[in-house]
Amino acid sequence: MIDFNYYAPTEVVFGKDSEEQVASLVKKYGGHKVLVHYGGKSAQRSGLLDKICSLLKEGGIDYVALGGVVPNPRLSKVHEGVEICRKEEVDFILAVGGGSVIDSAKAIAYGVNYDGDPWDFYTGKATPESFVPVASVLTIPAAGSEMSESSVITNEDGDVKLGYSNNISRPKFAIMNPERTFTLPAYQTAAGVTDIMMHMMERYFSHDGDMTVTDNITESLLRTMKECVFAVLENPEDYRNRSQIMWGGSLAHNGLTGCGRTEDWATHQIEHELSGMFDVTHGAGLAAVWSSWARYVMKEDISRFVRFAVNVMGVENDFTNPEATAMKGIEAMERFYHAIGMPINIHELIGRDITDKEIKEMARKCTHNFTVTHGNFKVLGADDIEKIYCMAR
Amino acid sequence: MIDFNYYAPTEVVFGKDSEEQVASLVKKYGGHKVLVHYGGKSAQRSGLLDKICSLLKEGGIDYVALGGVVPNPRLSKVHEGVEICRKEEVDFILAVGGGSVIDSAKAIAYGVNYDGDPWDFYTGKATPESFVPVASVLTIPAAGSEMSESSVITNEDGDVKLGYSNNISRPKFAIMNPERTFTLPAYQTAAGVTDIMMHMMERYFSHDGDMTVTDNITESLLRTMKECVFAVLENPEDYRNRSQIMWGGSLAHNGLTGCGRTEDWATHQIEHELSGMFDVTHGAGLAAVWSSWARYVMKEDISRFVRFAVNVMGVENDFTNPEATAMKGIEAMERFYHAIGMPINIHELIGRDITDKEIKEMARKCTHNFTVTHGNFKVLGADDIEKIYCMAR
Repeated sequence: MIDFNYYAPTEVVFGKDSEEQVASLVKKYGGHKVLVHYGGKSAQRSGLLDKICSLLKEGGIDYVALGGVVPNPRLSKVHEGVEICRKEEVDFILAVGGGSVIDSAKAIAYGVNYDGDPWDFYTGKATPESFVPVASVLTIPAAGSEMSESSVITNEDGDVKLGYSNNISRPKFAIMNPERTFTLPAYQTAAGVTDIMMHMMERYFSHDGDMTVTDNITESLLRTMKECVFAVLENPEDYRNRSQIMWGGSLAHNGLTGCGRTEDWATHQIEHELSGMFDVTHGAGLAAVWSSWARYVMKEDISRFVRFAVNVMGVENDFTNPEATAMKGIEAMERFYHAIGMPINIHELIGRDITDKEIKEMARKCTHNFTVTHGNFKVLGADDIEKIYCMAR
Repeated sequence: MIDFNYYAPTEVVFGKDSEEQVASLVKKYGGHKVLVHYGGKSAQRSGLLDKICSLLKEGGIDYVALGGVVPNPRLSKVHEGVEICRKEEVDFILAVGGGSVIDSAKAIAYGVNYDGDPWDFYTGKATPESFVPVASVLTIPAAGSEMSESSVITNEDGDVKLGYSNNISRPKFAIMNPERTFTLPAYQTAAGVTDIMMHMMERYFSHDGDMTVTDNITESLLRTMKECVFAVLENPEDYRNRSQIMWGGSLAHNGLTGCGRTEDWATHQIEHELSGMFDVTHGAGLAAVWSSWARYVMKEDISRFVRFAVNVMGVENDFTNPEATAMKGIEAMERFYHAIGMPINIHELIGRDITDKEIKEMARKCTHNFTVTHGNFKVLGADDIEKIYCMAR
């Protein structure tokens, strides 16, 4: 195990009608003028956006709204948000939606009091010194951004998708009403659970196999997510299981499942190029490449993949043949992805063959023109990443 | 499941030499003049106290020290602390020690800016409006006070032990170096783990059996604690397993294992009278009464005790006889307590027979002169509590 810091200060308000508390929570955390940031149709159609705005108004809190955030949120929208916040003297940003909206809100929050382009923080050109408080009313359990210190933004100029992490961006509060996820389509639900599980798997596949508490919590959460998703795909209004997924999504990514571990994150980096280039759903992209990553790296530490196979996927342990057991775990994960409607290769993801040229282009961008590597379980350069894309095609 | 709030803002700094960061952390959280609060010999003997004071000094932070906190921390020491803080214009309280020292620090922090006696908050006479920031350098994993909102104080005037919970008292940071627990005696180690496990069991025995994420995390943590304690009793300098216990102790009581559940806490209330009257170690007191509580209440929901027996204690499920399975789980817990050197009844705890008069007196005090009940799994009045003391004698 390695030394660690754990810091997850977000106040979670979880349950039916939890959004009723929005005005008092904004006040509690010092907000006077709020940017209500949202995506598109669903928040409006469901009436949630109107409800939030009415509650703020009733609570005597002034606000201005900015919608139109898309999946893989764009830098241009961030610029728009920064401008509005400055003009309207916004001192609190409330994201109403899922991870894309929260990530966009975080990027705006970095930018409001910064002279340059907030993209500088994502490229590593600058370090933020200020952050306007952010909070969320969560509607999509997936990204875990509601409690996390990270955000991912896509710069349309070159289709570059970059993430940035800083504890100052941890949201003040997160309102989570599982009923608000009842209308989430099956594909988004499944992609969300895939993302949630991957946030744990990126931390779980590590050489620091001696952090028992973290390992055991992570396995228990992975098993729980794997079970609950079938219940909500069967019955989208299953409050109990929608709740597990919603809360599990926050715990997966608030730091808890990484305590004491060197994290990996190669699969996320490999996927970012896919959703950057083809604008696919992030969770689906992860499912499309994970098993290829797994097959490519498993020999680095077979015992870890055996543990995953047995403790998470429920595979019978063939003690005489660890490699066969490990492989059965990967295959079981592929069956799971198919069972919930997720792809297990790029063809299934984008609906056509990917070209060699596209693969080479993604491997180049993924490694920032061959200058960086990814992953810790196995350190991957551009050649490795190209091979993984080829295995996943 | 029930709606819930989860709020655990304490920054955890975990690992070897983590105390090196003490001065920068105090500054980060706004401290200028620190009360270094501690217990007795062990913090001095180990050199930790000197080290902390030197680090503060080197960091340019002024401090004043107050030691002498005893297990079941006393109100008189709290009064002393309040006086010093006012006189020395202390703006930050750093507890160096275990739960008793942190609890004493919290009580002082409530009292500094309050005109009356901070005991008023524990008796429910008043609600605090101010709290001086508290943080800790943890040396005993047990109470979980380093991340919790609660504290327990004993008023020597009548031997009354009362707890009080308020989110404003959540500590700013917790420095946890597992090496600092190497010298903890076997009895204290075992009592600590008993307390840690009981913090989870008080939340686990609940009728809200549909909060799967919480149930599964709790069971995984309980199993982990149950395993790790044997390793550290065998080898007190086992860093890996000391780490699991230290981190497990915080997670057990920071709110995580109670999300979505109606909590019980009867066993703690029943024990508080024992340690109030006989000044025994809290964890040992819990072990002495738990199985009697369990036998008394198990028929309220046999399925919960079956789940505990199978998923936590590793008992084989006799599907034809849930009651027998449940009982085997309780007996397995008693064997576990004995195996780690803990008592399973009051005689083993205090070394003599308890008298009927003492039992009646404890039942009276436990129910504040027959005016309150305890517990939720089964609501217990003075008669019930008297019966449980008798079963545990």
